[in-house]
Amino acid sequence: MAATSPNRIVIIGGVAGGMSSATRLRRLNEQFRITVIEKDSYISSATCGLPYALGGVIEDREKLHVQSADKISAWFNIDIMTNTEAVEIHRESKQVAVRAVKTDGSHVDENVHRLSYDKLIIATGAEAIYPKIEGIHSENVFTLRTISDLEHVQAYMANHQVKHVAVIGGGFIGLEAVENLVNLGLDVTLLEYLPQVMPNIDVDIAEFLHSELISNGVKLSLDARIVKIHEPKPSAQGYVSLSSGEQIAADIVILAAGIQPRTELAEKAGLVVSRSGIDVHDTLQTSDPDIYAIGDVIGTTNIISNETRNLALGGPANRQGRLAADHISGRLVRYRGHTGTFVCQVFNLTVAAVGLNPNNLNRLCKKFEYVTVHPPDHAAYYPGATPITLRVAFDASSGKLFGAQAVGKKGVDKRIDVIATAIRAGMTVGDLQDLELAYAPPYASAKDPINMAGFVGTNVVIGDVKILHPSTLEKLRSPQIIDVRSPEEYGRGYIKGAVNIPLGDLRQRCEELSKAKRTLVYCHVGYRGYLAYRILKQHGFEHLFNLDGGYKLVSEGGFRHLTTLQ
Amino acid sequence: MAATSPNRIVIIGGVAGGMSSATRLRRLNEQFRITVIEKDSYISSATCGLPYALGGVIEDREKLHVQSADKISAWFNIDIMTNTEAVEIHRESKQVAVRAVKTDGSHVDENVHRLSYDKLIIATGAEAIYPKIEGIHSENVFTLRTISDLEHVQAYMANHQVKHVAVIGGGFIGLEAVENLVNLGLDVTLLEYLPQVMPNIDVDIAEFLHSELISNGVKLSLDARIVKIHEPKPSAQGYVSLSSGEQIAADIVILAAGIQPRTELAEKAGLVVSRSGIDVHDTLQTSDPDIYAIGDVIGTTNIISNETRNLALGGPANRQGRLAADHISGRLVRYRGHTGTFVCQVFNLTVAAVGLNPNNLNRLCKKFEYVTVHPPDHAAYYPGATPITLRVAFDASSGKLFGAQAVGKKGVDKRIDVIATAIRAGMTVGDLQDLELAYAPPYASAKDPINMAGFVGTNVVIGDVKILHPSTLEKLRSPQIIDVRSPEEYGRGYIKGAVNIPLGDLRQRCEELSKAKRTLVYCHVGYRGYLAYRILKQHGFEHLFNLDGGYKLVSEGGFRHLTTLQ
Repeated sequence: MAATSPNRIVIIGGVAGGMSSATRLRRLNEQFRITVIEKDSYISSATCGLPYALGGVIEDREKLHVQSADKISAWFNIDIMTNTEAVEIHRESKQVAVRAVKTDGSHVDENVHRLSYDKLIIATGAEAIYPKIEGIHSENVFTLRTISDLEHVQAYMANHQVKHVAVIGGGFIGLEAVENLVNLGLDVTLLEYLPQVMPNIDVDIAEFLHSELISNGVKLSLDARIVKIHEPKPSAQGYVSLSSGEQIAADIVILAAGIQPRTELAEKAGLVVSRSGIDVHDTLQTSDPDIYAIGDVIGTTNIISNETRNLALGGPANRQGRLAADHISGRLVRYRGHTGTFVCQVFNLTVAAVGLNPNNLNRLCKKFEYVTVHPPDHAAYYPGATPITLRVAFDASSGKLFGAQAVGKKGVDKRIDVIATAIRAGMTVGDLQDLELAYAPPYASAKDPINMAGFVGTNVVIGDVKILHPSTLEKLRSPQIIDVRSPEEYGRGYIKGAVNIPLGDLRQRCEELSKAKRTLVYCHVGYRGYLAYRILKQHGFEHLFNLDGGYKLVSEGGFRHLTTLQ
Repeated sequence: MAATSPNRIVIIGGVAGGMSSATRLRRLNEQFRITVIEKDSYISSATCGLPYALGGVIEDREKLHVQSADKISAWFNIDIMTNTEAVEIHRESKQVAVRAVKTDGSHVDENVHRLSYDKLIIATGAEAIYPKIEGIHSENVFTLRTISDLEHVQAYMANHQVKHVAVIGGGFIGLEAVENLVNLGLDVTLLEYLPQVMPNIDVDIAEFLHSELISNGVKLSLDARIVKIHEPKPSAQGYVSLSSGEQIAADIVILAAGIQPRTELAEKAGLVVSRSGIDVHDTLQTSDPDIYAIGDVIGTTNIISNETRNLALGGPANRQGRLAADHISGRLVRYRGHTGTFVCQVFNLTVAAVGLNPNNLNRLCKKFEYVTVHPPDHAAYYPGATPITLRVAFDASSGKLFGAQAVGKKGVDKRIDVIATAIRAGMTVGDLQDLELAYAPPYASAKDPINMAGFVGTNVVIGDVKILHPSTLEKLRSPQIIDVRSPEEYGRGYIKGAVNIPLGDLRQRCEELSKAKRTLVYCHVGYRGYLAYRILKQHGFEHLFNLDGGYKLVSEGGFRHLTTLQ
């Protein structure tokens, strides 16, 4: 029996991935009958813009409607069914049962229609996780997943006196919401269950974000254990109570404590589903070859760890949508897995990362090393240069890149994008030395931060230097610590127990030091420390380390207690 | 006879590459005797910052002294000989003859000293080309290659009434000088011999720069043939006369008409030198294995064309300096060739490029194609998005990346850096589709401009679309041209001869068109044109093209004469 070309294609979900599939299918084939089912009133909505629309940065909510259903219909000849919910997938008859819903999700009526499909694409996305907290379903608790969510919170804020806001969760949406709520002049508390915001980055890098949040007036509550959300009453202000006994004033609560894939429909249909979402092959087909799944609802392979993870990022969702359409159209395409590249604005800082961080790598028992540098985003002599704290992790023997994370005011996204490309290409930290990146004083340095990380990382791989991370500083027993900065820098604070020998004096004064002792050298960012390391090494010091990330990382990355600073 | 380890290393030239070598040598080996000879009074000067110091953007000229000779001596134990000129290399005795010079290059005395070397590094850089123009050596003609040059022009400007400036040459330094002189409130004319500024990019991309220059008040004279530079006299203003008869008011002239490697010393010593500079192996050794050469004075291999070229860029010079030091220290390193990545600020625009452009590719008889897109630098619904005009060139069959160029207000350097990394990795335009780049609304779109270029380029490679470039538009005989934009857009100007059928009407109205005719579709940037192409193709239109870069490239890229615009 010859396979017949598919004709009727139904797509459940009309946002990023779903609409990418729909429009790509039409471009490839004028004959397909393409139907998109969307529960919300809008398709192609720019959900990544929701926090900025809440904060008024995006002034007109209408801008979040990237494409109207009318335009999509006219350009692409696609049937768009908004306010329509897929109730059940009947795999034997190849039909989807749908019914009309109101914007609030309630049913218009009980009438269920059936749509036949030759190929079905599930793009139902993810939904907010509601932690088991008393009061979490109160009227003043809002999520920020859809334009309807935004409308709800804005309507509430228009009709109530809102001055204090508690944001639950310090991931992307939580952090973006915090920034935007502060910009509205509100009093904002960020409640995070973990000891750090942005769990995908290392805690010492996250510490830069903590400082930025606090210096912008955010009340930051880490390790927060929420006991109850108390709704405001005519007689009493709303608040959130913590197990510590603290009471956080909160007229409204924004819930951004993570998301989970919306897999009910797939599960009910008997498709294979695991913790990370619907299981898909690299063709994006589910366990039923006539059913594809894409976007936030699926798990995909991380190309470094080979683990399947739920990613929930807009870029991969769009890419998957296009690929599913290609595959349905008979093209031999494969989804190549993800690197998990992300970026987030946190007031004046940008944080971005790609690949695996040391925490992940430890869990995977990888033999890795990482280096931390703080080069300026562009030539230091050109006005406005600010440091980027860039950490690169790599295989300790081969130097193969595992991941990178960066935080700074400018140029952070650029460096992470370059490393994301290098990781996709299977490059090593040594290869970063040779990347020939665009240089002019307003944009970069002749030795780009990427090159610098490459130099430092390569020095570690080939054994030109041994480094010690601030996080393991306390484990170093009775060390001899040498601060090679200037006396002025030393005078402003130093690591407890360090003696000051400025780099320029080190050759003359290294006889003062004990060659037998474990010796740690450090400077502000690591460069002079490295020079000192090389001098001492060649003067016969054996047990020698340079401090990764230097005093800057110690004093700003959450290790102040190891310094003389108060 | 066993090879002895080198001991005395002499480096001629103490700027980017030379100082990178010197400091790297010291880090690798405390025993080396390292001497740097520098003709100027300063070492490690940030010559890339000269135009910005001229314009006052860099307020303090001192900032251009990245490292002082004192600090270098103290940290690195290196002998720095400033105001010292290398006169001759005696290869048999392995000595360099040097003598003291004044800042203006004149000899202090005739005493010549000889320095012995085991290994010599030539890092003499490049010097300004003086075109054969009458008056080119006048006192009011200045180059911008060294801090001394800057001091000279600033001293002249302090002591003379300077209102009108002519800048000769529209490359990096010329363009940066123009911007900075305009910012000083001066009347600036840019005289360029070629029909475009920035010769490394395509003329239609350069046209964006021409518009930017003109809209910032620069008098732009392309195809300029300078006959004579007339120095100002007490009785008469200075001016530059052109073969056209035009007279350009010029109290001073900034000469930035290109550079040439300073190879005299190498030539005199009998080293192999070619047009692109001193010949080096990939070890950076010259034809004499004890003599290395690095930086602007050498020719290196372009990794795409395999041609040897003089590059004269700061990034590669630094990299080569480090590598030469590694090789001298016995490490098996290789310089991997260049991609020629560059970036330049031109008022509010950034222009950047990497690899080969269509002109180069034509000359090399490569079978290539290229695509031009104009996506916004970040999510269009987030404030401040501006288009990036991004062109990517690739092998017509395999899609292998050959080069890219981009112009826009923001995010240009990022995209070129990513493509530079992709080119270094040997990626194809198809691979650009899969790059997972950091996305959040302030930084990018879920489909990054890089991904967009990947999609469009791949469509071309696999034959989903045929494109026509504006530059070949006139060669298309008696075409049927369809403008698929809205009637409003069409009303504001269109390509001569085009009929307007808005995309949404095309399916219904395609019977109005002749399937036999060569048909060109276009929209504003190319996307709707592509959709129209796909519709018409599947309706049986055979001789069909989409216009690369759309109406935006036609109207802004120098093809206005093909439109109804005045």
